Amino acid sequence: MEFEESGIGEECGVFGCVAAGEWPTQLEVAQILTLGLVALQHRGQESAGIVTSTGTSPPTYTTLKGMGLVNTAFKAEDLLKLRNGNLGIGHTRYSTTGISELQNCQPFVVDTLHGKIAVAHNGELVNASALRKKVMRHGVGLSTSSDSELITQLLALTPPMEELDTPDWVARVKNLMTETPTSYSLLVMYKDVIYAVRDPYGNRPLSIGRLVPISKLHNSGAGEADTEGWVVSSESCSFQSIGAKYYREVQPGEIVQISKNGVKSLIVVPRPEGDPPAFCIFEYVYFARPDSIFEGQMVYTVRQRCGRQLAIEAPTDADVVSTVPESATPAALGYAQLSGLPYVEVLCKNRYVGRTFIQPNTRLRQLGVAKKFGALTDNFAGKRVVLIDDSIVRGNTISPIIKLLKEAGATEVHIRVASPPIRFPCYMGINIPTKEELIANKPEFEDIAGYIGATSVRYLSVEGLVSAVQGGIESHGKDERISTKTTRFGHCTACLTGKYPVELEW
Amino acid sequence: MEFEESGIGEECGVFGCVAAGEWPTQLEVAQILTLGLVALQHRGQESAGIVTSTGTSPPTYTTLKGMGLVNTAFKAEDLLKLRNGNLGIGHTRYSTTGISELQNCQPFVVDTLHGKIAVAHNGELVNASALRKKVMRHGVGLSTSSDSELITQLLALTPPMEELDTPDWVARVKNLMTETPTSYSLLVMYKDVIYAVRDPYGNRPLSIGRLVPISKLHNSGAGEADTEGWVVSSESCSFQSIGAKYYREVQPGEIVQISKNGVKSLIVVPRPEGDPPAFCIFEYVYFARPDSIFEGQMVYTVRQRCGRQLAIEAPTDADVVSTVPESATPAALGYAQLSGLPYVEVLCKNRYVGRTFIQPNTRLRQLGVAKKFGALTDNFAGKRVVLIDDSIVRGNTISPIIKLLKEAGATEVHIRVASPPIRFPCYMGINIPTKEELIANKPEFEDIAGYIGATSVRYLSVEGLVSAVQGGIESHGKDERISTKTTRFGHCTACLTGKYPVELEW
Amino acid sequence: MEFEESGIGEECGVFGCVAAGEWPTQLEVAQILTLGLVALQHRGQESAGIVTSTGTSPPTYTTLKGMGLVNTAFKAEDLLKLRNGNLGIGHTRYSTTGISELQNCQPFVVDTLHGKIAVAHNGELVNASALRKKVMRHGVGLSTSSDSELITQLLALTPPMEELDTPDWVARVKNLMTETPTSYSLLVMYKDVIYAVRDPYGNRPLSIGRLVPISKLHNSGAGEADTEGWVVSSESCSFQSIGAKYYREVQPGEIVQISKNGVKSLIVVPRPEGDPPAFCIFEYVYFARPDSIFEGQMVYTVRQRCGRQLAIEAPTDADVVSTVPESATPAALGYAQLSGLPYVEVLCKNRYVGRTFIQPNTRLRQLGVAKKFGALTDNFAGKRVVLIDDSIVRGNTISPIIKLLKEAGATEVHIRVASPPIRFPCYMGINIPTKEELIANKPEFEDIAGYIGATSVRYLSVEGLVSAVQGGIESHGKDERISTKTTRFGHCTACLTGKYPVELEW
Amino acid sequence: MEFEESGIGEECGVFGCVAAGEWPTQLEVAQILTLGLVALQHRGQESAGIVTSTGTSPPTYTTLKGMGLVNTAFKAEDLLKLRNGNLGIGHTRYSTTGISELQNCQPFVVDTLHGKIAVAHNGELVNASALRKKVMRHGVGLSTSSDSELITQLLALTPPMEELDTPDWVARVKNLMTETPTSYSLLVMYKDVIYAVRDPYGNRPLSIGRLVPISKLHNSGAGEADTEGWVVSSESCSFQSIGAKYYREVQPGEIVQISKNGVKSLIVVPRPEGDPPAFCIFEYVYFARPDSIFEGQMVYTVRQRCGRQLAIEAPTDADVVSTVPESATPAALGYAQLSGLPYVEVLCKNRYVGRTFIQPNTRLRQLGVAKKFGALTDNFAGKRVVLIDDSIVRGNTISPIIKLLKEAGATEVHIRVASPPIRFPCYMGINIPTKEELIANKPEFEDIAGYIGATSVRYLSVEGLVSAVQGGIESHGKDERISTKTTRFGHCTACLTGKYPVELEW
Repeated sequence: MEFEESGIGEECGVFGCVAAGEWPTQLEVAQILTLGLVALQHRGQESAGIVTSTGTSPPTYTTLKGMGLVNTAFKAEDLLKLRNGNLGIGHTRYSTTGISELQNCQPFVVDTLHGKIAVAHNGELVNASALRKKVMRHGVGLSTSSDSELITQLLALTPPMEELDTPDWVARVKNLMTETPTSYSLLVMYKDVIYAVRDPYGNRPLSIGRLVPISKLHNSGAGEADTEGWVVSSESCSFQSIGAKYYREVQPGEIVQISKNGVKSLIVVPRPEGDPPAFCIFEYVYFARPDSIFEGQMVYTVRQRCGRQLAIEAPTDADVVSTVPESATPAALGYAQLSGLPYVEVLCKNRYVGRTFIQPNTRLRQLGVAKKFGALTDNFAGKRVVLIDDSIVRGNTISPIIKLLKEAGATEVHIRVASPPIRFPCYMGINIPTKEELIANKPEFEDIAGYIGATSVRYLSVEGLVSAVQGGIESHGKDERISTKTTRFGHCTACLTGKYPVELEW
Repeated sequence: MEFEESGIGEECGVFGCVAAGEWPTQLEVAQILTLGLVALQHRGQESAGIVTSTGTSPPTYTTLKGMGLVNTAFKAEDLLKLRNGNLGIGHTRYSTTGISELQNCQPFVVDTLHGKIAVAHNGELVNASALRKKVMRHGVGLSTSSDSELITQLLALTPPMEELDTPDWVARVKNLMTETPTSYSLLVMYKDVIYAVRDPYGNRPLSIGRLVPISKLHNSGAGEADTEGWVVSSESCSFQSIGAKYYREVQPGEIVQISKNGVKSLIVVPRPEGDPPAFCIFEYVYFARPDSIFEGQMVYTVRQRCGRQLAIEAPTDADVVSTVPESATPAALGYAQLSGLPYVEVLCKNRYVGRTFIQPNTRLRQLGVAKKFGALTDNFAGKRVVLIDDSIVRGNTISPIIKLLKEAGATEVHIRVASPPIRFPCYMGINIPTKEELIANKPEFEDIAGYIGATSVRYLSVEGLVSAVQGGIESHGKDERISTKTTRFGHCTACLTGKYPVELEW
Repeated sequence: MEFEESGIGEECGVFGCVAAGEWPTQLEVAQILTLGLVALQHRGQESAGIVTSTGTSPPTYTTLKGMGLVNTAFKAEDLLKLRNGNLGIGHTRYSTTGISELQNCQPFVVDTLHGKIAVAHNGELVNASALRKKVMRHGVGLSTSSDSELITQLLALTPPMEELDTPDWVARVKNLMTETPTSYSLLVMYKDVIYAVRDPYGNRPLSIGRLVPISKLHNSGAGEADTEGWVVSSESCSFQSIGAKYYREVQPGEIVQISKNGVKSLIVVPRPEGDPPAFCIFEYVYFARPDSIFEGQMVYTVRQRCGRQLAIEAPTDADVVSTVPESATPAALGYAQLSGLPYVEVLCKNRYVGRTFIQPNTRLRQLGVAKKFGALTDNFAGKRVVLIDDSIVRGNTISPIIKLLKEAGATEVHIRVASPPIRFPCYMGINIPTKEELIANKPEFEDIAGYIGATSVRYLSVEGLVSAVQGGIESHGKDERISTKTTRFGHCTACLTGKYPVELEW
Repeated sequence: MEFEESGIGEECGVFGCVAAGEWPTQLEVAQILTLGLVALQHRGQESAGIVTSTGTSPPTYTTLKGMGLVNTAFKAEDLLKLRNGNLGIGHTRYSTTGISELQNCQPFVVDTLHGKIAVAHNGELVNASALRKKVMRHGVGLSTSSDSELITQLLALTPPMEELDTPDWVARVKNLMTETPTSYSLLVMYKDVIYAVRDPYGNRPLSIGRLVPISKLHNSGAGEADTEGWVVSSESCSFQSIGAKYYREVQPGEIVQISKNGVKSLIVVPRPEGDPPAFCIFEYVYFARPDSIFEGQMVYTVRQRCGRQLAIEAPTDADVVSTVPESATPAALGYAQLSGLPYVEVLCKNRYVGRTFIQPNTRLRQLGVAKKFGALTDNFAGKRVVLIDDSIVRGNTISPIIKLLKEAGATEVHIRVASPPIRFPCYMGINIPTKEELIANKPEFEDIAGYIGATSVRYLSVEGLVSAVQGGIESHGKDERISTKTTRFGHCTACLTGKYPVELEW
């Protein structure tokens, strides 16, 4: 199901790159950033931005921002202006509307007494409102409603900047982390360094990769000496497209310094005693690209495990298993494997259907989803279908699909949802409809199958989801790809359970 | 594999609609045409056009044309201008480049002594060159290189137009069919009628659908009395998205008249004795949308049969079967079923990768396909993979995919192609690279596996393809969906065998 | 007054260029054509087009067309495609609306048995309707409503084209001239030749210029040997901007062949005995740029003479004379000179006022013209103003100007119009409002001063206009710039008098 | 001469509007702002912005910004979003290049402890660098290089904002005025009030107008009771186009509060003892629209006086006087009047010449200005011409004009410049080329006539300019339009004399 339709949306993706070795380097940092952002495009389509630094003293910063997809927002001739960038950070932003929003486009660059810093942010500060007041009480005007501008001003503000001192940005970042517990994965660029920061709860992902010669991308090749540079990204799926190898995740609470000299862990700010980490479980269920790796496991594999768990929890007497393409496919294959039912395709997607301009109150509106999916009738006519979806948010997109399958000859359509019902708002960076709009909070949920026209509807349990996610981590000691140790782990399931990782009044 | 990359491209799609009953009707013909073209978008992305007629006497024709995808080419406010259209035809055109090409955009409308006709054409006239000379010798200037303009002038030209006579367009179309044997599926609109025409060889597809009330789309509903209008389309996949039911195909050589009074077969122009029909077999293999129906069978099912046949012809000692998403998936599932090997996904597609603007001579160019596909490593690392592709044209897109899989841990990559090698040019509407560019004609083809880096490469045989296609037709008597009888059938395999359905010097 | 507001509009401008000497030449023909069209932009702002020919055998033609002003329609990178053009013709078209009009954009290129010809046309065929029928009866479909397509098809059609003969385009053009008497100034390009043609009545202008080295543009320099090429244009004002010297006008009925070998008069097709020429008098009054030369006299000078004549015919007891900027300024200065009244500026124009998007039914609509002109109060407050306008078409633009001046303190505002009232439609290339819309045909015209709020209104007489125009020609024997002799002259005053130069039923 | 070519440019224009009476009002504030900015478009073409406030408590602010001319930057549908605005301020910005500059687009809106303020600024702070340091030392990050952002942060910063206090914006503005002496004309909007502020030296203009019913715009009509609202603008030329009457200027150092209750002078911050005002004299010479009123006199009239003074200082033995259209025309008419020489037009402007895309190193580059101006030969051939220009900055645009006139037959071309030579940079809001680029500072200036190809060149003296400007003010007691008293006056002539109104190290 599409994010746009379901009404759930990730807020952002961040990406950074530092060329290694002597500068100016031959590495096209601006182009790597662009490709990296394209690979994170699923995390935000409203706008995109890049800031590069020459890494010199003083540095020259060059900024490129635009509305829309990365390919629309940047033009080839614009990229030429960033040619001398030896390091840089970039950002993609979730789709809302309105041209005046360009001012919310990240990264934010501000000039301070000690020079310019650039900041890219994924997440949402739980105590943003109190922090805004604090900053404004100090006499700072805020020109946007963005948390990221707030972060830049907080960094500039405290501890007091004295003209002769060095800025000590690490102390400032650390100070910021004591003022706000979550949620943020941050990139802060200053001169020739990028600080990669993840909040103490590790709510948003952040991974580090190593650029190696294309010819040495093979598993066995490329030693340390071959390093051409470093990248840092919301998701590791972006590494492959720019010729980088997965290195490790930034740990919850960690500040990592990335420069041409390499990667250095500076500090790990601890959580309050007893608090587990709270990595967003919906990154696994929904947001992340299936080829990304979190906590040592591939997202695709986790989704497949969810499908298997769902088959255990909600077995079905049916003929075939299928998927709402494309995001539910791994779960559907998992369900098919465990249930022993054959996997078939029942829907074919018209990838040219874009924003429609058909006017309301016409006969055609009733057709709804039909212009987006074609029914592969032969595969299910006269059969009982188990249709796997990854989640049901408002319940208004699955219902025309069921109608379509039934009209085309399915005798039964059993909906199996590879995640639990969403019931609570998220205050940590995910755009979820209001409580009232969520189908799981409506009276109709009592008879959800009747409401959406399905033969039956079953959801994965919260416990099932957590075990599908964490079961993989527990056993991943065997997995050599994991270069860091997570002694404890935990996940944020607030939107499912209402249990938030921190006090919201924080 | 994407059409753009493989270098094979369909030329066009055509779509027509007539509102039934008393006019003005409440049916939004222009919007139905637009949605119909969106569903045919895979047949052409260069430009789109619509012409509607008020169906009055005299009629008012309104034209809307634009470059690019349908959603780009037309704007909501433009569609309002076509509001009074009671019938109309539309066209999408294959992607070449250049703004001045708008003049090639169809449908073509020309004014004649008896009023305006509008023509939309899919196909390519094998004797276009001789026909152009004929027309020009008569003193007609041709303003484009398009066959479709040529067709309109041929229709206007012969037999001689006398001022007082009626135009007798049917005689003119019949005359045209005697002058050129193939290839064309044509829509000719005149006042309140659309003539749907398929060449005697039936080289290009053309299907008719019936608009019914959305509430009666069910299989069992909607009798004749419920008919709200008629549509005619290159592919039946477009019917569902506008609320139409499949009615039947236009037969090879047939002229069908579509008006508000219904559908009427006027004539069937025969082929030379002994010539079988020659429906393009690549419509099954490659071009058509999987949910379209030709000759009574769903394209998806034919592709699946190709995969099964391929498993019989080219079995493999391997661990998993997979696909190059998305077009080869039915064949891959068919191969998996018959071979008993498990089907897994090995590649995840980044649907945001568009036209790239990365400059040449950079490190990044070497990465090629990597920005388009992510490797789902867990599913194949340490395994022997059978990778199904639908065809290999130039051989330059499959090779980086193989490299990607190997680098990510596949121990063997066996390529199985669900169609035979393409060796010959097409003169009937398909854009194929020159003979020299086709990998099957190159010396490297001797060791194609070595050339593209695969462990092994096997193709489906021509006989296997034909039997996979025709086997379904032979047995489709059981299929109630088929409303017309095809007493004989045959397919054009010229690009595979060099055997063209007509003399090219015709 | 602006054309757009007055509702009077020229239909088109044409421009051609041939590089002299051996080819390929260093002359940038495409750029000369572009600049030439920019200088003719006042004759048409809807669309622009260029076709160049390599002049080789066979030639390659390249076409560039676009909507809007020349600078919008063509892009620098597009012009590069025309780089090899050794000759070419171009066209600008009058502003109407609608994107689909690109197909009406000239020049028209059609392929014939003998190769391609390109045609650019300024004017309107008085017998277009009969000619369209003739062409269509022959079996030719016409795809536009444009006279120019009609002309190309007429050229292709008659006399019959035989495959082995040479085309004899000159005979075809001559034949065309016998079929239609007026109005057209035509450029016909074929291979390496441009035929410049003016209808027998000379209704639309056409002038020839000679490209010389920039360093020899001085009056005294540049002999025949220095010729770098030839240009032909609707107006000589375009010569200066591309470094050409005025050579001569194409005579009424003349076909001039322009090639790299020079300029050659081929034939002069005569008018019916007794018919005088009929050059459009409104080219002098209104359309042409003031620095253009027609019939040996500068347009500016003629307008100034109109102002002087107006001062004789309609003297005023007033304090100052002024102009509605900018087109009426020469007449206003002429009026001031002869009347002895001081010339002052009373209005200042805001050149940034473009298409306004202010919605109707607001307070602001009442302000009308006020956002376009500012009042220079000091120059006329407390004074009696004579305001010269070049023409009054519908009477709705002058009235808010009068109101503005009165509110700003003018005690009297006397309108003096430097041309007679327009009362009749034009069928020869000028876009004039319908008879009913013309203020001179309305009852309000009885008290035109009261209607528009002026103290008094007086027009130039038809006789006065003709004598102001022809008086200059009669005396121009003294003017050395005139290289051709016009033994007789005459002007079309049909829109003022209803006397058309030819029978309209022709 | 065009600003773009001369290299001199105004930085900005500001405009504000408050609807009077009970809210919501029927006055379309957003449309008035738009039209007001269109009338100030000559002061800046890079970008435009509007912010409106509902004037409620709390207010809703809506912002609209875009690149390019006002008509390009705003679209009709965007304006609808500002429909509820009961007051608002707008800004146009001078043309530089670069898409990322949208962030510099004004007005700036910042959120403070006491709500949002919006600021629009025309001018340049002489001590910006010191103020930036001060702000940053306090811990504020600055995201642009714009003085206007600096002003907003200074307003937010001092005196310290305490949560419970009222903000006292007037005290903050007053404090700002003690921190920076010049140059600024400011509009500060807060909730339902606009503060209109002019720096103590009055360096940039700012005028107030009164909106009256269109029907009562007459001099005699519209008493206080008819007031529909108030506007404030950089120039009074914008009043007429929105139906406002000139009210008065904001005085140097004055803070005027504009609300729905009317206009109230709050305070006048004095200059250091002995310092005269320093209104930029180039507003008269060059920047302002001729129908604007400063210090009680119309700019056109001042320019005419400059022309008369120039005729006294630099008389010429010649035949005709003319102008480089259009800005030098008042001076040319003044020169003609006093000298008794006839005024003629010698150049006609092609208003369609825009940004040219002709490539360098072509024959056409040499033609330079010729594509922009046509020579009206008849008016000056064989004559001695006095050509008035308003200023000569770099000397590279006048020289091709002289060449053009000479080639077209002028026997002598005497350049008379209606202002003194520019020799010094401006630090107060005007974009002037570097000292080295100014022709008056080059060795060639010794023989400027020879350098630019003129027969002779003479400039107006500084004393002559000052007396032409101030002579009108001294005598304007007679002028009833002046509603305020200027007891002393003075003008900044720094770019001519190097005498800056304040210490630059301030």
